[in-house]
Amino acid sequence: MRGAVLYAPHDVRVDDRADPKIVEPTDAIIRLSATCVCGSDLWPYRGIESVDGPSPMGHEYVGIVEEVGSAVNTIKAGQFVIGSFFASDNTCAICRAGYQSSCVHRELVGAIGTQAEWARIPLADGTLVATPDIPDDDLIPSFLAASDVLGTGWFGAVAAEVGAGKTVVVVGDGAVGLLSVLAATQMGAARIIVMSRHESRQKLALEFGATDIVEERGDDGAARIKHLTDGLGADSVIEAVGTRESMLQAVHATRPGGHVGYVGVTHGDLPGDQLFFSHTHLHGGPAPVRRFLPELIDLIWNRQIDPGKVFDLTLPLDQVAEGYRAMDERRAIKTLLTVNH
Amino acid sequence: MRGAVLYAPHDVRVDDRADPKIVEPTDAIIRLSATCVCGSDLWPYRGIESVDGPSPMGHEYVGIVEEVGSAVNTIKAGQFVIGSFFASDNTCAICRAGYQSSCVHRELVGAIGTQAEWARIPLADGTLVATPDIPDDDLIPSFLAASDVLGTGWFGAVAAEVGAGKTVVVVGDGAVGLLSVLAATQMGAARIIVMSRHESRQKLALEFGATDIVEERGDDGAARIKHLTDGLGADSVIEAVGTRESMLQAVHATRPGGHVGYVGVTHGDLPGDQLFFSHTHLHGGPAPVRRFLPELIDLIWNRQIDPGKVFDLTLPLDQVAEGYRAMDERRAIKTLLTVNH
Repeated sequence: MRGAVLYAPHDVRVDDRADPKIVEPTDAIIRLSATCVCGSDLWPYRGIESVDGPSPMGHEYVGIVEEVGSAVNTIKAGQFVIGSFFASDNTCAICRAGYQSSCVHRELVGAIGTQAEWARIPLADGTLVATPDIPDDDLIPSFLAASDVLGTGWFGAVAAEVGAGKTVVVVGDGAVGLLSVLAATQMGAARIIVMSRHESRQKLALEFGATDIVEERGDDGAARIKHLTDGLGADSVIEAVGTRESMLQAVHATRPGGHVGYVGVTHGDLPGDQLFFSHTHLHGGPAPVRRFLPELIDLIWNRQIDPGKVFDLTLPLDQVAEGYRAMDERRAIKTLLTVNH
Repeated sequence: MRGAVLYAPHDVRVDDRADPKIVEPTDAIIRLSATCVCGSDLWPYRGIESVDGPSPMGHEYVGIVEEVGSAVNTIKAGQFVIGSFFASDNTCAICRAGYQSSCVHRELVGAIGTQAEWARIPLADGTLVATPDIPDDDLIPSFLAASDVLGTGWFGAVAAEVGAGKTVVVVGDGAVGLLSVLAATQMGAARIIVMSRHESRQKLALEFGATDIVEERGDDGAARIKHLTDGLGADSVIEAVGTRESMLQAVHATRPGGHVGYVGVTHGDLPGDQLFFSHTHLHGGPAPVRRFLPELIDLIWNRQIDPGKVFDLTLPLDQVAEGYRAMDERRAIKTLLTVNH
């Protein structure tokens, strides 16, 4: 089959890869309907995270189940399914508490590489969720968004305890940040302030329900948020970047007793005393997307939300290199890759 | 009046200090019944935190109100009162949310120095809570504990979301750690594991309701906690030390989705990626003791708890130097200083 492989920083290509086969009886093989490039794929692409030899890429996926292993009971061939970047059994104590991305049997789907024609998904019954029927083509981008960026933005909002009447700040205007705006709107936030300097992203944030845009960053950005919130800071702040600077911007924009939900993989050290005296709640980590999939699938199936709007570039899988380049150069928010079988 | 002053590392003395007077109409003057030395006083005493010239010391206090300013309405001369290390108005939005130690008008009582015969307490109506009547002398150590270490240990347990049936770990066997054991017992925890290597402190932890002692530290300590909790980690972990090592020990002892309550002033940087992938909730900071005082005073007045047991050394104020030395050398958990007027 054809699939994307990263050979070195800035060198990603579609190559011939071995067709996936059932390895464990709990596996499923899915035929990808579409896949995409994630902001987190840019870390190794830019050489900031090192890769150990040629690496299959991609961890977002939707598609039709082609085959299931002998121990798979609920997922059936022919279903259209969505899964997350961590395979999970969905039965252990950690999964039952809603933290499927820390499942005691979790497996990283990124190691499999879903920017490809087919993919083997481990722990199929615990990982995959089927739609009520085969969806219309125009819904596929939104279901693909649910596989990671929507689920991650949603978790950011949940972790930040967004709720009715609250003032919410979103740090980061990538796909996850923008979809956390959509999540906050769904959760009834009274005011949603997006920190963004990019006109096209600001525009999409406003479409998703943002009420204010702040262009300042760092200490100036946090000061601007305080100014907009009676000097106190926001109730809920979602951090969707993952640098020391963006984390401190988020923490300092939050009122004492408020909540920071952080979903960008945090790079760098954080000053303990600043966290301590901020008096904030911090919660985050790799989003347990599986927890939210049934609800998100329902909202998309019923056309109540349209998270697929974050894909502003669509290319065939064979043009994956241009898909990465466009995101690296910030010409695209997120690239959808179509797969022709 | 007589009061403790820190001149240089390891040089604390009782000196003549100016008698306090009403400065703001919201002030009260209290005649101290007792005061004490805090673990956090050891940071400047040891020279780890620098001091800028001779500094009055102490921020824990109970006593009789001697005089109130013209704008004080609820606190009256003659009452026995307890307050916290931050004066607070108890009316602003942050106070109303229960974060009085981040009150928009907060003042640090430590700057006043309560290891003395008298003290001026700002924002008396918002800061001080009176007991139902003048307490018996034997209750004074427990009320003094409520002023900081009990309130701080209690906040650690609340921040760690301790509750009925939960497994709780306490990192740190100082007065705050020990009193967070007492708090966890009151809150119905099923299992309370204390990380301690000191026999006298282990003994008091068991008296306060601890069920298990773990002597290992750092990664070994966290591994031991995992071993004791089906490989998952504890539901709630209270961090009551304040170093990078103790924070990471706490984070790694917590299950994904679990809660860390941190109440030791965090010194040093924390690795963002380890916090992120731990999937824990983090909450802490300077304890809003004022939030808990009415409940704690009630429990002490009715003799349902005896937090005063953490004082294992009692000295007259004039022997403050020996009080610090005994805590610095870990000969004492906590020193109570009697004040003779």
